[in-house]
Amino acid sequence: MSRRRNKSFKTQVGTSPGTLTYVGQEIDHATHIQRIEYNETDYNVDDSGKLSACKLPNGGAPHVLWLDVDGIHEAPVVATLGHQFRLHPLLLEDVMNTEQKPKVDFYDDDRVSSPVIYVTMKMLHHDPRQHEVDAEHVSFVLGPTFLLSFQEERTGDIFTPVLERIRASAGKTRRNGPDYLLYSLMDLIVDNYFVVLDNIGEKLDAVEDRIVQELAGRETLSMLYALKREITIMRRYVSPLRDMLNALQREESALIKDHTDPFLRDLADHVNQIVDTLDTYRELIPGLLDVYLSTTSNRMNAVMKTLTVMSSIFLPLTFIAGIYGMNFDNMPELHTRTGYFWALGVMGAIFVGMIVYFRKQKWI
Amino acid sequence: MSRRRNKSFKTQVGTSPGTLTYVGQEIDHATHIQRIEYNETDYNVDDSGKLSACKLPNGGAPHVLWLDVDGIHEAPVVATLGHQFRLHPLLLEDVMNTEQKPKVDFYDDDRVSSPVIYVTMKMLHHDPRQHEVDAEHVSFVLGPTFLLSFQEERTGDIFTPVLERIRASAGKTRRNGPDYLLYSLMDLIVDNYFVVLDNIGEKLDAVEDRIVQELAGRETLSMLYALKREITIMRRYVSPLRDMLNALQREESALIKDHTDPFLRDLADHVNQIVDTLDTYRELIPGLLDVYLSTTSNRMNAVMKTLTVMSSIFLPLTFIAGIYGMNFDNMPELHTRTGYFWALGVMGAIFVGMIVYFRKQKWI
Amino acid sequence: MSRRRNKSFKTQVGTSPGTLTYVGQEIDHATHIQRIEYNETDYNVDDSGKLSACKLPNGGAPHVLWLDVDGIHEAPVVATLGHQFRLHPLLLEDVMNTEQKPKVDFYDDDRVSSPVIYVTMKMLHHDPRQHEVDAEHVSFVLGPTFLLSFQEERTGDIFTPVLERIRASAGKTRRNGPDYLLYSLMDLIVDNYFVVLDNIGEKLDAVEDRIVQELAGRETLSMLYALKREITIMRRYVSPLRDMLNALQREESALIKDHTDPFLRDLADHVNQIVDTLDTYRELIPGLLDVYLSTTSNRMNAVMKTLTVMSSIFLPLTFIAGIYGMNFDNMPELHTRTGYFWALGVMGAIFVGMIVYFRKQKWI
Amino acid sequence: MSRRRNKSFKTQVGTSPGTLTYVGQEIDHATHIQRIEYNETDYNVDDSGKLSACKLPNGGAPHVLWLDVDGIHEAPVVATLGHQFRLHPLLLEDVMNTEQKPKVDFYDDDRVSSPVIYVTMKMLHHDPRQHEVDAEHVSFVLGPTFLLSFQEERTGDIFTPVLERIRASAGKTRRNGPDYLLYSLMDLIVDNYFVVLDNIGEKLDAVEDRIVQELAGRETLSMLYALKREITIMRRYVSPLRDMLNALQREESALIKDHTDPFLRDLADHVNQIVDTLDTYRELIPGLLDVYLSTTSNRMNAVMKTLTVMSSIFLPLTFIAGIYGMNFDNMPELHTRTGYFWALGVMGAIFVGMIVYFRKQKWI
Amino acid sequence: MSRRRNKSFKTQVGTSPGTLTYVGQEIDHATHIQRIEYNETDYNVDDSGKLSACKLPNGGAPHVLWLDVDGIHEAPVVATLGHQFRLHPLLLEDVMNTEQKPKVDFYDDDRVSSPVIYVTMKMLHHDPRQHEVDAEHVSFVLGPTFLLSFQEERTGDIFTPVLERIRASAGKTRRNGPDYLLYSLMDLIVDNYFVVLDNIGEKLDAVEDRIVQELAGRETLSMLYALKREITIMRRYVSPLRDMLNALQREESALIKDHTDPFLRDLADHVNQIVDTLDTYRELIPGLLDVYLSTTSNRMNAVMKTLTVMSSIFLPLTFIAGIYGMNFDNMPELHTRTGYFWALGVMGAIFVGMIVYFRKQKWI
Repeated sequence: MSRRRNKSFKTQVGTSPGTLTYVGQEIDHATHIQRIEYNETDYNVDDSGKLSACKLPNGGAPHVLWLDVDGIHEAPVVATLGHQFRLHPLLLEDVMNTEQKPKVDFYDDDRVSSPVIYVTMKMLHHDPRQHEVDAEHVSFVLGPTFLLSFQEERTGDIFTPVLERIRASAGKTRRNGPDYLLYSLMDLIVDNYFVVLDNIGEKLDAVEDRIVQELAGRETLSMLYALKREITIMRRYVSPLRDMLNALQREESALIKDHTDPFLRDLADHVNQIVDTLDTYRELIPGLLDVYLSTTSNRMNAVMKTLTVMSSIFLPLTFIAGIYGMNFDNMPELHTRTGYFWALGVMGAIFVGMIVYFRKQKWI
Repeated sequence: MSRRRNKSFKTQVGTSPGTLTYVGQEIDHATHIQRIEYNETDYNVDDSGKLSACKLPNGGAPHVLWLDVDGIHEAPVVATLGHQFRLHPLLLEDVMNTEQKPKVDFYDDDRVSSPVIYVTMKMLHHDPRQHEVDAEHVSFVLGPTFLLSFQEERTGDIFTPVLERIRASAGKTRRNGPDYLLYSLMDLIVDNYFVVLDNIGEKLDAVEDRIVQELAGRETLSMLYALKREITIMRRYVSPLRDMLNALQREESALIKDHTDPFLRDLADHVNQIVDTLDTYRELIPGLLDVYLSTTSNRMNAVMKTLTVMSSIFLPLTFIAGIYGMNFDNMPELHTRTGYFWALGVMGAIFVGMIVYFRKQKWI
Repeated sequence: MSRRRNKSFKTQVGTSPGTLTYVGQEIDHATHIQRIEYNETDYNVDDSGKLSACKLPNGGAPHVLWLDVDGIHEAPVVATLGHQFRLHPLLLEDVMNTEQKPKVDFYDDDRVSSPVIYVTMKMLHHDPRQHEVDAEHVSFVLGPTFLLSFQEERTGDIFTPVLERIRASAGKTRRNGPDYLLYSLMDLIVDNYFVVLDNIGEKLDAVEDRIVQELAGRETLSMLYALKREITIMRRYVSPLRDMLNALQREESALIKDHTDPFLRDLADHVNQIVDTLDTYRELIPGLLDVYLSTTSNRMNAVMKTLTVMSSIFLPLTFIAGIYGMNFDNMPELHTRTGYFWALGVMGAIFVGMIVYFRKQKWI
Repeated sequence: MSRRRNKSFKTQVGTSPGTLTYVGQEIDHATHIQRIEYNETDYNVDDSGKLSACKLPNGGAPHVLWLDVDGIHEAPVVATLGHQFRLHPLLLEDVMNTEQKPKVDFYDDDRVSSPVIYVTMKMLHHDPRQHEVDAEHVSFVLGPTFLLSFQEERTGDIFTPVLERIRASAGKTRRNGPDYLLYSLMDLIVDNYFVVLDNIGEKLDAVEDRIVQELAGRETLSMLYALKREITIMRRYVSPLRDMLNALQREESALIKDHTDPFLRDLADHVNQIVDTLDTYRELIPGLLDVYLSTTSNRMNAVMKTLTVMSSIFLPLTFIAGIYGMNFDNMPELHTRTGYFWALGVMGAIFVGMIVYFRKQKWI
Repeated sequence: MSRRRNKSFKTQVGTSPGTLTYVGQEIDHATHIQRIEYNETDYNVDDSGKLSACKLPNGGAPHVLWLDVDGIHEAPVVATLGHQFRLHPLLLEDVMNTEQKPKVDFYDDDRVSSPVIYVTMKMLHHDPRQHEVDAEHVSFVLGPTFLLSFQEERTGDIFTPVLERIRASAGKTRRNGPDYLLYSLMDLIVDNYFVVLDNIGEKLDAVEDRIVQELAGRETLSMLYALKREITIMRRYVSPLRDMLNALQREESALIKDHTDPFLRDLADHVNQIVDTLDTYRELIPGLLDVYLSTTSNRMNAVMKTLTVMSSIFLPLTFIAGIYGMNFDNMPELHTRTGYFWALGVMGAIFVGMIVYFRKQKWI
């Protein structure tokens, strides 16, 4: 519900389909492109960021080419890449549309565009300033020998750990094709979801503790609402991944090798675990709310009891005092010697009687 | 829940099926028909609005014919068009039934009527007067070389942007058939949904701000209810589009070309995004309501605390004053020199004690 | 939840399956049967109501035979008809069981009974006395050349409009077979649902207006509950029609001609529209309830504020008056000349101060 | 939630699968077995209850054998029967497990056990002592020429009406095989559900009347909760029957004859009707609860109004009386002749003014 | 929501897929492995716990090999076992991931790893210290002649009853293969669920009793919330078993023999029964909550009534006393002889009148 989203929605009306328009936050860095080539024996990084280098290697040893594009706000850059890899205009539109929800698309009509698989999902961060989950738009284009990854230029390159693993040794990633690389990057993003989930879990724990120990004030309720909102939004980002991963496994595409399937299945397991935990959290919130509301109601009850006890004790006493404050000429009690003390005694008796009564009622 | 809908319902009983009855708002303009013919090289608009011109071109260069009918309240006009294009009576009934919910129908029995695809959906506007989503009934009839579009004569021609694009240059629309034109018009309508969605999102933001900052009064609740109603109604108009677009893609109809499929898929994505956002909004409303109700309850609590504090302080004090206002002859304290000041002192002590006690209870 | 339903449930236990028992309201009219025969050229009504006339025409010109049976409370009449048309005993049981929910049954085992389609649905009226939807049990038996229609003898013949159309001219009904007649009658019943829906919509409008304008009292809540109940019950009667109509279209039965399919699809559209509207209504009710409850809670708040303001102003004032009503001998203020006016002044100041304070709090 | 269920759960842990353990209520009667043989012409009952008689007839005229076993608490008896009819150990376990929920099992592996169909469901009674639905575990084993029925020995033989029909005449049951007998017995049980449903409906009617007429106290809420619980539990027993009956119809088993299918379909209709009514009831309960809670809240409002009116009238009056009870020497009003009556007059004016004000507010 | 889970989530980010990391509670015992070999005639246990013994028997009589691994916190041990049985790295990761939710995986690509079935589920205990369900991670690897079982080293060996049955006699387990052993162990775990379910049921009974008898305080609400949480978490552990068991039955795997299918079906029945009971419990909780809240509200009502009755009685009386406490010179009533007694009489009449009025209102 940020200004950003609103802007994005509005600028779309009336433009021709396939028009490249960036709808995310304004950014003043230039797009940065990293070109990584590797196979089991070689490894080569071109960090110059030149667009012209972003071509498929023609001939030579079979390498996996990974173009890591950092920044999707420059339409010409995206368009050039699209041209060099022969990508469908709608695919490019999706790359730049930061509001696109997670999905997978199979482009298999060779006459129109290269046969590639397009995957988009959200990288989630906990933005400590906004107290809110912050979603970064990430896209992947998987081809037979290449993988393009696009991310918003916002929080540094999130794919560094995988890059390190490739550089470090001739491990599993180096031995496998671009589909395994895609899996590794998706796995990295999903792993990060657990961190966000942890953060939510810890906050829920804190709120729960406050509520159960009756320390909760109204700001606790606002936190509970904010948590529910966070869970709702995160679920919206994560749950489509289940169908996406199923589609990737099921699809009879040559781009996904058979031995990558168990890894995708494993990833789907993780996603299920996250969605499941989110659902558990979501189901618990109404219960917490009920406990909180009952606390409020109990406090009100305590206030009312105090009022009732005070009134019930002092109204009758004041009335008795009022009687003997009357100025009638003929009030026999007034002229006895012990009248005053009798009056005090009766008042004391009423006082004690009321106290005993309310004790029995457990009101005090 | 307007008078308009009610009227429509009632006039239907007992009429023969297929009878053309307009059930929308009363309109006094005449129907206006625009005839556009184009192919990659030519472009021709006939704005005369003559019904007789509304025929398929016989022979000549293969053109796409687009008849844009503005106004569906005149049964004879619709009937004539139906006759000229050999459309099924039930199709014509649906064109005029402004209450028809979004759907797609495949008419493929060549013996009864032309094989066409009938698509109907709602154009949504935010009516600033009624503070309500206003739905305009739009229908499309897709034939092999023609597209008929029907809209209510209410808010000007909503298809102008596409018309401009066709006129402007020999772009994608000019190179493609009527199925792509249908997609373009549907895309235009869906793009507009985002504007309405934005409006809802902004209003929800405003309500949320008011509630979280405890500024909300009862009118905020009415706004929340109105928002929920708007979301419910908009969801009802938008969500059938998902199945419709799936049906259009899946259907083995020669009327929808293969290369239009990715565009329809893209449109389905947008629709999904809208429904998703609506669902998120809808899920957030109960949480907001709880925060609001808790605010009300907290205010009540504050009122009660004030009352209780005032009563608890002054009832005992008044009682003490009452005691020494009694007229007993024998009240020794009354005749001491410092009695009055002792009494005042005790009252002051009780006053301070009560204040301290309620401070500890955090009631003041 | 009427007595009627209860009786019906109980009398069923222990009877042999297929036993004909009428379970509806008690009726003292005799069953009335109308025999209509027609084809494109001829038309013939036998209004004598003789049971013996209720046979299939043997030979002669091919006619559609429609037997319209008004009253299903006489087991022998139903049994005789069942015998003459060779109907399955369970079908006859369903005809008489006014509690049967809407369904379609395909009897296709030629050895046991005639191959017919059995359709049952509810005719709905708004009973102005009971403020409740009243459901009348209607059954149809569709054979190759005949249609039997059964209705409860309660509110006059509901099929009159169709009968009039048949009599009036050689229209669509006259040109088609008994399946189109079945469609026409079902369409008539569904059209009537819109009237009931309208009535519900109007009542909901009224309740909404009262609640939003804060005019609602407790009887409004009862109306809201009654509306919810009506919607729940109506939905229960209407929603099975969707599956029924789908089954009728899908079924490869020779009894339903191909060109009747679009009409059934159209009818299914109407049913969908009704269920959809009912669902929208149903979703809105909880929101209205929340607004109503918040009104109640606001009123309580107003009451509490009045009480608190009155108490906070007069308790301190009375206390001050009480002090100077004490009878101590030594109270210097009492004997000054302006003491009384000072006291009045202090009271006035407190009064004004309190008023200002509560104004700031927006309590008054 | 009875002690009984708990016991059953616990004793199961660690026992070998297929061990016969009775888990229901303790019973001290012996098992009673009735052997009924019949065909269209003959009918024979052996009421001796000898286990040795419980064999299949070898040769002779083709009869249907029905063994009606009353009491399932004696493991040896069940084991012997299982041996004589070659039943699977898991089937016997299910026969004795009174906690087993309704289901149908098809045992068709001829090498392991006889090919039979196992059906289990619940017989429901309204236990007037416990104000709760009481469920009796009933099992059926359908073989090619025999039917075994097992019931708990608790409330007398519930199958008497069917037995009477068989004895009485050579009706439909006598002409058909054991599958029709199975249907008849299931139909009997389902018919009984209507009685229980009626009881629930009547109680709901009573609660509704009390609530709508504002007569409801807290015990009404307990009744509402008990009703909801009853409905929840009954639904749990009845709803699996729908799938069971579908499975019986669909299954290509020679044990169910074709002409029994319509009867099973009819039975499924009845079950649907019951589940439907239960769902309607269940949906109405929250609405009733809201009306009830609003009544409570209205009563609170009435109480608060009384308090506020009383305080607002008498606090100012008492204050005025307090003023003229002060003992200042110089209070001019006190010494006028009409001062007292003026004071009374002002008090009266305030009293009347307050009354008028609160009338306008509609508080009194 | 324990510290444990959080840790587990965080340590996963950035590690290479297939890395073995133990994420459960810290444990200082060594892993203990028991090797059991048996067939119908022989039985042999090797309790030495040597890893080297954990190989498949080469040749000799065909035995079932069961390795019962107690403790999954030592990555090298799990890795060695994985190597000896040629298990997939992802399978080993799942064995050690105590956060893995229940699932079944079919590893059937013989080139990559042994074709085995991997099953993981949760063993549930009631931890009396934490008042919470405690879940232990259990895994099974089913091969053609072997079964590996992994459990956390926490609460002693939970499989002892099955081990005893195998040792005791040449029963059903000894006669069957490792698939039946797998079933027996799963059955043992599911049996244990009933114990936990019982515990929940008993606690729910206790809470229900307290609430219905109006003895419930705020701690009852906390218990209700804790119960709901327990039910939510238990459901999350148990409900995936249904799909798992279906998958095991359906799968055309040679590892599961045909005659084990009925046993798996029976197990699925038990799981259904548990999930069903959990659902019933879950549905009942909101109703209980409503009854509880209504109790709170009724108590508040009682408090308010007391206050109102006291105020309504004593405010008018005090006012009357106040009138005659005024010091006007000219107050005729004061000087009559019976004035005081008249005043007392009027006060008494008002007192009695109020009492009668509130009795009628049923407030006292």
